[in-house]
Amino acid sequence: MRKPVALAHASRLLNHGPTVLVSSAHAGRRNLMAAAWSMPVEFTPPRIAVVIDKSTFTRELVAASGAFAINLPCRAQADLAFTVGSTSGRDAVARGTDKFAEYGIEAFDGPELGLPLVAGCIGWLECRVIAEPHTEQAYDTFFAEVVSAQADARVFEGGKWAFGPENADLHTLHHLGSGVFAVAAEVVRAKPLPGPPKGQS
Amino acid sequence: MRKPVALAHASRLLNHGPTVLVSSAHAGRRNLMAAAWSMPVEFTPPRIAVVIDKSTFTRELVAASGAFAINLPCRAQADLAFTVGSTSGRDAVARGTDKFAEYGIEAFDGPELGLPLVAGCIGWLECRVIAEPHTEQAYDTFFAEVVSAQADARVFEGGKWAFGPENADLHTLHHLGSGVFAVAAEVVRAKPLPGPPKGQS
Repeated sequence: MRKPVALAHASRLLNHGPTVLVSSAHAGRRNLMAAAWSMPVEFTPPRIAVVIDKSTFTRELVAASGAFAINLPCRAQADLAFTVGSTSGRDAVARGTDKFAEYGIEAFDGPELGLPLVAGCIGWLECRVIAEPHTEQAYDTFFAEVVSAQADARVFEGGKWAFGPENADLHTLHHLGSGVFAVAAEVVRAKPLPGPPKGQS
Repeated sequence: MRKPVALAHASRLLNHGPTVLVSSAHAGRRNLMAAAWSMPVEFTPPRIAVVIDKSTFTRELVAASGAFAINLPCRAQADLAFTVGSTSGRDAVARGTDKFAEYGIEAFDGPELGLPLVAGCIGWLECRVIAEPHTEQAYDTFFAEVVSAQADARVFEGGKWAFGPENADLHTLHHLGSGVFAVAAEVVRAKPLPGPPKGQS
C-alpha cells in the first residue's frame, strides 16, 4: 500500500511529532537508528530538522554521504524501533554485518537517493542535508530538504493522516523513554472557542 | 497538581512530540500561539528548538524579550489549542486586548522569568533564547535553554509520563492538521528483538 506523497505534503508526515528511524548508507555500509527528536521547519520547500548525536555511526555515514532517510515506524514495529535505538551500528560492522541483517529488517531502495528504506513502516522521506556546520556541532541538529516522500495509503492519503480503529497496528509511535511509546491511537477534532465578533476592530 | 520538574528531566516533556502553546510577553503586551514544530536538542543542559514564523506577533515579542514559555495542552484543551493557533495576537492588540482576555484563558506567572503560563495545561517550560540569528532567519528555528520546568503530577511524575485511562483528559495533543489532533491515548512497552549473542565479536 506504499504510494508517493506530494512533496508539498511531506512535512505533514512529521507534523504530529512521531518517533522516526533514520537510515543512512555510504561506501557499502548502512545503518539504522531511532530518533525521537525531529520536526518539520518548512512546508514548501519541505524541510526538516533532526538531532543526530556525534557518537553515532549514523552521524559518520550522514556526514560522509550528505543524506539520510526518515522512516516512520508504526505500533506493530515498537520492538524494532526500540532495538535499533538501543544498539550500535558500529558493533554490527565490527561483526562484519549490519543491523538490517542482524535483526532481519527488510529494506528497499529509496526512489531518489537509493537510501535503504525500512519495509513495514508507514512513511518514508529521503532527505539531502543542508550543510549547517555550526548547528550540527553545537546542537547535533541537521537541517535537510526532503527529496522524496511516500506513505502507506491505509493511514496517510491525500496529504492527510487517517488514524482509526481499523488501522490500529499502523498508528505512529511517540517515544516517552526507556522503550515505552505513546501511540497516536485516538483523534479529536477541535472547534473554535467563542471569542470576539468577526470584523470588530 | 502542578509540581516542579528537575531540569535534567525537562526535555522528556517534549520527547514524544506534543503540540505546544508558546506564550510570550514584552513591555506590557503578551501573546499565545500554537506550535506543532518543536523538539528537544539536549537533555543536559535542557535545550530545545522551536519554529516561530516571521509573520507572527509571538516572533516580535520573543525577539524583543529573548524568552518564551512552552505550555503543553491536553485533550481537554483541544479547542483552546486550535483557537490560539488560528487567530492573530496582533488583531487582539488592535482591539486593545489580547488572546488571553478574549478567550478567557487563565494565566499564572512563571517562576523564573515571570512569563504567562496557561492554567489547565499539563507541562510548562520557561526558556531563554540562545541567539542564533542565522537559523532564526533561514529556518524560523529558535534554540533555547529551559530555565524552569513544571508538570501536572497526575500525568508526569518522577521524570516520567504516565498516560492511562484514568487520566484520559490529560493526554497530550499531536496536531495532524486543520484542527485535527492525534491523542497520545495508549502506551506500548517495547522489548528487544532477538539478535546477535551478547559479547560476540
